[in-house]
Amino acid sequence: MIDTLYGSMSDGAIGVFDSGVGGLTCVRELIRLMPHEDIIYLGDTARVPYGTRSRDTIARYAAQDIAFMEKHRVKLLLVACGTVSSVMQSERIFDGSKIDCYSGVIIPAADAACEATRNKRIGVIATPATVRSGCYEFEISRQRPDITVYSRACPLLVPLAENGYTFVGCEPAEFFVREYLTPLKEKDIDTLILGCTHYPLFEEVIQRFMGDGVTLVSSSAVTAQQTFEALKAQKALKPDSHKAQIELYCTDSVELFKENVARFVGGDIDCEIARCIL
Amino acid sequence: MIDTLYGSMSDGAIGVFDSGVGGLTCVRELIRLMPHEDIIYLGDTARVPYGTRSRDTIARYAAQDIAFMEKHRVKLLLVACGTVSSVMQSERIFDGSKIDCYSGVIIPAADAACEATRNKRIGVIATPATVRSGCYEFEISRQRPDITVYSRACPLLVPLAENGYTFVGCEPAEFFVREYLTPLKEKDIDTLILGCTHYPLFEEVIQRFMGDGVTLVSSSAVTAQQTFEALKAQKALKPDSHKAQIELYCTDSVELFKENVARFVGGDIDCEIARCIL
Repeated sequence: MIDTLYGSMSDGAIGVFDSGVGGLTCVRELIRLMPHEDIIYLGDTARVPYGTRSRDTIARYAAQDIAFMEKHRVKLLLVACGTVSSVMQSERIFDGSKIDCYSGVIIPAADAACEATRNKRIGVIATPATVRSGCYEFEISRQRPDITVYSRACPLLVPLAENGYTFVGCEPAEFFVREYLTPLKEKDIDTLILGCTHYPLFEEVIQRFMGDGVTLVSSSAVTAQQTFEALKAQKALKPDSHKAQIELYCTDSVELFKENVARFVGGDIDCEIARCIL
Repeated sequence: MIDTLYGSMSDGAIGVFDSGVGGLTCVRELIRLMPHEDIIYLGDTARVPYGTRSRDTIARYAAQDIAFMEKHRVKLLLVACGTVSSVMQSERIFDGSKIDCYSGVIIPAADAACEATRNKRIGVIATPATVRSGCYEFEISRQRPDITVYSRACPLLVPLAENGYTFVGCEPAEFFVREYLTPLKEKDIDTLILGCTHYPLFEEVIQRFMGDGVTLVSSSAVTAQQTFEALKAQKALKPDSHKAQIELYCTDSVELFKENVARFVGGDIDCEIARCIL
């Protein structure tokens, strides 16, 4: 699993890409932790979702996303898409890429979950493609063979999130959280990985359903945290005097994209939004 | 609205395309009405859904779908996608195409609804792109300015249908039918167009919610019926001795596509399934 930060960080922006708007939950955390960093974000909104597609289609799309990022000056690239992260190694999407410093969300989330669990029972919710890949089982058992992992694919959570059905008391949000999480609750997990960057929007519904005894690990948040620590350790953070530039790109219309930005970033941000065709 | 059957029908198959599996509800009707016709179907499963995207992205994808169909011998082409049908004319996707005999689903559905209504109040449920296009309002008011049309976008019905949440008693199906249709019920419509080819799967839930006094018009079924009548009138139907060949193409994996075929076609069919890259 090529999932930790590799390579040496030069000057430039933090690149982030996702199939759509989900990765903006990662951008939110990056801004919170590092308000002076430049960020270039790409959401492939003309082809979202990736998580219900096959491995080779996901790899094909991801290679195009990376090619787009290569045209910009990025010091490191975050694959803020659980689905792409889960097929990164086996499909070798970074082979031949000029970008040598990158991270997916799997290892940061697996690390944080291994640290959090007390009863050695970790649950994972993610897209069908991520669950089929078995990446969390692989990564966690590699680190900690004493831990058992229980995974569930949640295909409806992405469209629900993109349409705003995420809050406590929202009937379909409550239904699908119950539908997908009941089998994990029955396994008595004490830690749950939110393995898709859309899922932090359901955090409150999920926490209430699972109970306070279960620690939620957001793959977005822990990846942003790991990035912050890596940049800090390498003294590669921008100085406080730097005014951050944030550029967001989408592959479908800017107008449709804008409807979701505030919801996923958690408020208004000062940024440029443009369209690109991959 | 270029939406009726144009051109002269030569020998060949009936071509049908959709963004994904929804158009298979139209294939089901074609097989029922014309069991001896050859059918070539394309579902762009690597980029489904279309209905939440912008007009120009939809037009770009549709032009590639048509280019694929041009490589096959089709006597007429059905655009079995409500979304593509709704942007067909303004985006001129058939300009320069070799295929001169084609139909979308809008005019057949508008015709049938105009015929069915008694109280001159027609409801339309469709994807966001179709509703934004205003195509049903345009077409119905062109024919019958005395009729009022009420439209509602239903973005969640496609992912629900693709994941099997469509039956009576299914909580999210009932929730979203209630959510989307309550405003139309309050307008006292007596006819409802199912303006997306995924929606016939919700027929029973919708009929129960709306009540028996409301006539449902399936855009899939009426388009298949119109095609049957046109082929019959032009004596372009295959003879009863002909053994139909059905070829289904998808742009993502065949395996994932197969999971949905039986559900949308309404049973097993004798067909070839292959993948193509657009």
